[in-house]
This record gives sequence, C-alpha cells and structure tokens, in this order.
Amino acid sequence: MSEATRDKMKEAAARLFYTQGYHGTSVRHIAEQANVNIALVSYYFGGKKGLFEQLMTQFLEGYLEAMHIDDETRMKSTREQLLSVIRSLLSYQQNHYHLARMVHREMTMDSVLVRELMSTYLRKEKHDFEQLLRRGMKEGSFNKQPIDFVLIQLRGMITLPYYSPQYLRELYQLSTTEPYFINRYVEHLTSWIDSCLCGIEPTRTNRVMLKIN
Amino acid sequence: MSEATRDKMKEAAARLFYTQGYHGTSVRHIAEQANVNIALVSYYFGGKKGLFEQLMTQFLEGYLEAMHIDDETRMKSTREQLLSVIRSLLSYQQNHYHLARMVHREMTMDSVLVRELMSTYLRKEKHDFEQLLRRGMKEGSFNKQPIDFVLIQLRGMITLPYYSPQYLRELYQLSTTEPYFINRYVEHLTSWIDSCLCGIEPTRTNRVMLKIN
Repeated sequence: MSEATRDKMKEAAARLFYTQGYHGTSVRHIAEQANVNIALVSYYFGGKKGLFEQLMTQFLEGYLEAMHIDDETRMKSTREQLLSVIRSLLSYQQNHYHLARMVHREMTMDSVLVRELMSTYLRKEKHDFEQLLRRGMKEGSFNKQPIDFVLIQLRGMITLPYYSPQYLRELYQLSTTEPYFINRYVEHLTSWIDSCLCGIEPTRTNRVMLKIN
Repeated sequence: MSEATRDKMKEAAARLFYTQGYHGTSVRHIAEQANVNIALVSYYFGGKKGLFEQLMTQFLEGYLEAMHIDDETRMKSTREQLLSVIRSLLSYQQNHYHLARMVHREMTMDSVLVRELMSTYLRKEKHDFEQLLRRGMKEGSFNKQPIDFVLIQLRGMITLPYYSPQYLRELYQLSTTEPYFINRYVEHLTSWIDSCLCGIEPTRTNRVMLKIN
C-alpha cells in the first residue's frame, strides 16, 4: 500500500504544480487530490518542498535513462545514434508532460537545488552528448566546429516543445502531446543534423516527406 | 518627479522579481528598495500584479521595436537583415537582463495574461520573422522548407541564453552579460543560417574566426 500511496501523492502533486505552480499549491490540496491524510505528505516526503525535489530528481533520473543507447543502436552510425537519443528524450518528455514543464521551468531559477541538479544530471547529459558529437567529428560523420554552442542548441531544441507547449499550441496549432508531433519534430531535427552537423543537403525524399506531414 | 519615481519602482521590482521570484517579492520590499512610500505602488500600478504586468508589456514592446529594420539595413540582403534583427534582439535582452529572464520564464505559464501577450506581441514577432523568411525563400536566398519549425527554432535560439543564463554559466562558463558573448553566439547562428537556411557550407574564413573566439 505504501508504494501506491506515494505514487498517488506524486501524481497529484505533479498535476497541481503544473496547473497552479509551486507557490499556488498547498499540502492540503495535494492530500485532497490524492485522497490521503494530510500528515502522510510530511511522513513520506518531509513536506511540499521534499515532494517537489523528489519529483525533480525522479524526472531527471528517468531523463538520463532515456539517453541510454542499447546494443542494437550502438551498431548503427553516430548520426543514427544521435537521432535515436533525441527521439527517446522527446518521447520521455511527452510521457511525463506535466513533470517536464515543471522541471524545465524550475531549472531557469537560480537556487541551490537547481545548481545541484545542474552539476549532476545536466552535466551528465552534456557529457553524453559531447561524447557522441566528438566521436562523430573524429570519424568524419560530423563537421568539425566549436562544440559548446552545438551542445547548447541541441539541448535547447530537445527541451523547447516541453517547457513552453502552449506557445506552440497558441501560435502554431501544434499539440506536443500528440504522437504525430514527435515524428514531425524529429524530421525537422534530422534535417538540422544533416545540414548543420553533417554538412549535407537534405535529400529530395526528405523534403517530400516534410511536405506531406 | 513622477516619471523618475515610477522608474525607480520598476527597476526595484524587476531586480526583486528576478532574484526572489514573483511570489517571493512583496510590495513592501519593492517600496523599500525604491525608497518610496508603499502607497505609491498601488497609486501608480494598482499593486504588485499591475506593476508586474506593466514590466512584461514594456519589455515586449521594446523587444518588438528592436526587431525594426532601418532603411540602411533594408538595402542589404535578406540574410543580412535576418542577422541584423537577431543581433539586435540579443543586445536588447542583454541590456534588459533581469526583465528578459522574468518575461521568458513567465511566458511558460498557462495564464490569461500570457495568452494575451502571446496573441499580440509574440504573434507580431512570429509575423515579422515569417515575412523575412518567406521573402528569402521566394528570392532563392533561403532553401524552401516547412516554415513553422524554422520559426520555432529561431525564436528558441534567440531567447535561450536569456531565459536560462545560469545553465550557460554553470556548465559552459559562458557569461551572457559579457559583450563577447553576443559576438560568439551570432557567429554560431550565422553558420546555422548558412547551412540550414541558405544550404551553403561555412567558409574556411568563418571556421577560422569561430576558432579564434
């Protein structure tokens, strides 16, 4: 029962933090939505802050797991591996829609918690992407170029749809929770990788595919 | 005197919202920092929310003004015009560092205010960039491609350094408030435009320049 109760509280909290913001959410509200006694929030998480931090950490741990390249993909080209990681991270964020926005939003704050999470999880994310890009540059699949801005741009493009989904909805009628979204977005990122990283022109086939969607 | 007082309050509020967040900032605190009577905040802005909304609007109005292409630049190529707008928007955000982060952060919220600001200011921003890109595609300077994701990516890249400056500082030792930052970043964006939009390989000169910085 304890695991299920914990999950219920986490789910309720993620939904409330997402809609009401951290400051607009009370422990009482979380307990009500999860249908548990208010004392349990303190008991399991040490209060609202503890619950919030646990949600952040859990999301980022899952995010790093989603970056893992399996043995089958590892046999493919570096370009394919990069695309596979990108697709996996987009799916992960889509599956954790509420948490994703909450975490990305919180990461723009300048707090002790954020600095800690950056220097662990986001440093690991940076490291993994850097390895992949350097390998691609070394073997000649990617053009040599200053790697820092490519990494920053890459992370920006992967997180963009999930930190500000309503921008895409309001101005572009794109729903980032729909399955088609990831397919279209990955196609755009593929042509970005091909032209900016690999230095090749998008093929005619790609262009036609892009038009159809 | 009234104009100077108003400005003092706005400056104090922008700084406090930036460091403490909206919820962590009180009207009393703003009045203290601006060295004015607390009643003046209500008098001039109708309270904290009114002051906050005025700061948001003011930032976005200046942002759109920074997109204006002057007559001299209008004589240049579409690529040059796009680069000039990008540089201008980066400088504007750098000059309004506190406000920029506050606004970009707030724009990730799903509120009535945000929807209003999106459907006016951000719709105008999208429109202006779209005009520029369509002209470039029509005259053949830019490759034809689905325009929505290019626009989204472009906005993402322009705002990224100023919505999460501490990410660039912590993990890349890049200070987005330094003058050199914009030069380096514009060089990166130039090579993005050349390879992704114009479909040309970065020249050797560009590469050498990128290395030096």
